[in-house]
Amino acid sequence: MNRRRFLTHSAALGAGLPLGLQPSPFSWRPTHRQGVDGGRLNAEIQELRRFGGTPDGGTHRVAYSDADLGAREWVLARMREAGLRTWIDPAGNLVGELPGTEPSLPPLGVGSHIDTVPFGGSYDGTIGVLGAVEIVRSLQSAGERLQHPLHVYVFQNEEGGKTGSRLLIGAVEPGELGVQTASGYTIQEGIRRLGGNPDDLQASRLEPGALAAFVELHIEQGATLERAGIPIGVVEGIVGIRRWFVTVTGEKNHAGTTPMALRKDALVAASHLVTAIHGTALEMEGRQVATVGRMEVEPGAPNVIPGSVRFTLEIRDLSMAGIQRVFDAVREEAMAVEAETGVQVEMEPFYTSEAAPSDERLRRAFEAAAEQGGRGHLRLPSGAGHDAQSMARICPMGMVFVPSRGGISHAPEEFTPPDQITAGVEVLMGALIRADRIF
Amino acid sequence: MNRRRFLTHSAALGAGLPLGLQPSPFSWRPTHRQGVDGGRLNAEIQELRRFGGTPDGGTHRVAYSDADLGAREWVLARMREAGLRTWIDPAGNLVGELPGTEPSLPPLGVGSHIDTVPFGGSYDGTIGVLGAVEIVRSLQSAGERLQHPLHVYVFQNEEGGKTGSRLLIGAVEPGELGVQTASGYTIQEGIRRLGGNPDDLQASRLEPGALAAFVELHIEQGATLERAGIPIGVVEGIVGIRRWFVTVTGEKNHAGTTPMALRKDALVAASHLVTAIHGTALEMEGRQVATVGRMEVEPGAPNVIPGSVRFTLEIRDLSMAGIQRVFDAVREEAMAVEAETGVQVEMEPFYTSEAAPSDERLRRAFEAAAEQGGRGHLRLPSGAGHDAQSMARICPMGMVFVPSRGGISHAPEEFTPPDQITAGVEVLMGALIRADRIF
Repeated sequence: MNRRRFLTHSAALGAGLPLGLQPSPFSWRPTHRQGVDGGRLNAEIQELRRFGGTPDGGTHRVAYSDADLGAREWVLARMREAGLRTWIDPAGNLVGELPGTEPSLPPLGVGSHIDTVPFGGSYDGTIGVLGAVEIVRSLQSAGERLQHPLHVYVFQNEEGGKTGSRLLIGAVEPGELGVQTASGYTIQEGIRRLGGNPDDLQASRLEPGALAAFVELHIEQGATLERAGIPIGVVEGIVGIRRWFVTVTGEKNHAGTTPMALRKDALVAASHLVTAIHGTALEMEGRQVATVGRMEVEPGAPNVIPGSVRFTLEIRDLSMAGIQRVFDAVREEAMAVEAETGVQVEMEPFYTSEAAPSDERLRRAFEAAAEQGGRGHLRLPSGAGHDAQSMARICPMGMVFVPSRGGISHAPEEFTPPDQITAGVEVLMGALIRADRIF
Repeated sequence: MNRRRFLTHSAALGAGLPLGLQPSPFSWRPTHRQGVDGGRLNAEIQELRRFGGTPDGGTHRVAYSDADLGAREWVLARMREAGLRTWIDPAGNLVGELPGTEPSLPPLGVGSHIDTVPFGGSYDGTIGVLGAVEIVRSLQSAGERLQHPLHVYVFQNEEGGKTGSRLLIGAVEPGELGVQTASGYTIQEGIRRLGGNPDDLQASRLEPGALAAFVELHIEQGATLERAGIPIGVVEGIVGIRRWFVTVTGEKNHAGTTPMALRKDALVAASHLVTAIHGTALEMEGRQVATVGRMEVEPGAPNVIPGSVRFTLEIRDLSMAGIQRVFDAVREEAMAVEAETGVQVEMEPFYTSEAAPSDERLRRAFEAAAEQGGRGHLRLPSGAGHDAQSMARICPMGMVFVPSRGGISHAPEEFTPPDQITAGVEVLMGALIRADRIF
């Protein structure tokens, strides 16, 4: 083990692993070259833009659209060329299997998605899918075999609500299947278009332990790596999310005839709360975020004191307890605002997404793989949801991020330089090879 | 002069007139009884609800509607019965003249309006019109003659923009005539319906000096009198109004992947401004008010950091310089927010209504009349606009308020007790009799 590099790595972490730790499988070094063909990989990322690519460099390939179907067919061909045995599961996910040397072991999973938001970018999801295919090709051409079977997943409709991965874990309510998506098709119709079978979804369910582990490479969609100048982000977990509707009720009144001291202005009270929410999340220790994204002011005339304001509060953190800590502070502030101004504040929860911590063994596998390639890394939470979040419900989960230029995502300007994508895929490959020994 | 009562009055004022003042015309006491028939007056106020009255006690009588036409016809009949010579001016205002003993003097003006906002109250405007008619009847039955001719005005479409009174002073832009009103008719069509002549508006213009003075009785539409327990409000003037669109531009971003410290949240910045606007107007000396009544947050999703916020800022004060003082403080705060948070703030004016101070002689005439009747009074600004505001452009203007229960107006719950209306009309009559000597 290269102690000097380990020290550098610890410094990058800030509060990293204790020095002197001797993690046996993590310091193990595979003997074969863990390189991939970055030129081929990045050419394919561009080639996939034949399906839904927009002139501005972005991609419009919403799930179930013709572009989505075309792209899946093209990826399916690449998977077969790479020697994978492929199928479409009843949930509509595209899956490819590379046999392992120990067929009795549960498979390792790797993958992501190729659908995009409307008029989105060309990297979100795609690099995780094509990167996995490139890893298979590299293993094959190097004549390397994993012990575990490897399953490459192309999950369907990630952007529309992680439908494919959530169907695998039984987290989709029956009513959801009737929801119309951006493609114009309902989810149920979409699954049929992809070759799945919405009447037999149960058959695609994965029970806990069905996979040995699952890993995913993704663009960061934030600016933390870029600002730190570090190419590899080891994801500590996918943050939990809770959302509330906050209603502030004051007294609608004439803006000309009501003296300042007699007002119960709902917007002034709401503004105090927005400021407090921001200040709390900013100053509290940790990496929690809190956002007021939507606000409606009633009645909404220039000459009427607002009588009520309704806004959304969203808090995200790696732990649900961290979310609760922020919320408790906000609620305390709301009670103070009520007492001071006479308005009423109601906070009604309407959405919860549980936090999904990644597996520490996989985090360290990513770090070891990064170090072997001489690549800097840091740990960070994933503020956005990913298919890996679903998979964490059934097996140990790990994620690795590469930088997003300007932190921009879900827009045509989304971009990661080719060499950083290659680096991410090589780290993913190194982690998979390590995971094959660990699990 | 009753010194004891004067002291009481000064105490009510807070910072009132200097003690020991000897205002000669104001301490003059008319010898005739300044009483009116309150029973008849209040019965007529209820009777006028035949035109547009709603079952909840309110009135829906928007200008130019059939209800408005019916009410005007009914009032016209009362004016004629009272001995007024009546006409409809080209602007569509209903006018009645009571001859004075000195026909060469310019007329004194008194009046208000009988149109309402949609589904409004039954007192706003109406008490000023029917009160004026009652004063004429009382003068007639007492055999009292004023020196000046007296003109009773029923201004048209006050609620839709003070159209009738603004036409008299030439303050209506030609384009405004084509605006559709709540009645469904354009202003031009409405004027024809009332018996005016939109092609000859110039003929209704009043030049400065055309009236000796103008006085108006109105409900307060605020809660100052009620809270103070004082029946008579002497209006210091009608506040000026300026309105701005404020646009705060930050950076739209992913609410999950953008750390708190890296955000340029337009709504957080806007909330700082709303808080500062309220605090400035509250703490600054004076009776200015500042209101943010409308706000739009873009893009407006729970999971997206707001990239831009647009809101209205309205500031009112008795002096335009006072408005500017508040605005300057807000602008300074906006610059501080820009510097601290990196957002951009633009403030674009879109509406100005000039302040209209009342005439000090008329204020004191109201006060003297109130004291003669043993009625407490206080001075206050009018935060709302009134026809008297237009008339202030051509002659000395005075206004008197009676309390609004709960400060409520423009709603069916609008209410002033009959005895308080009677008191207001008697004070109005006393002031008119004094004005007849002063001007």
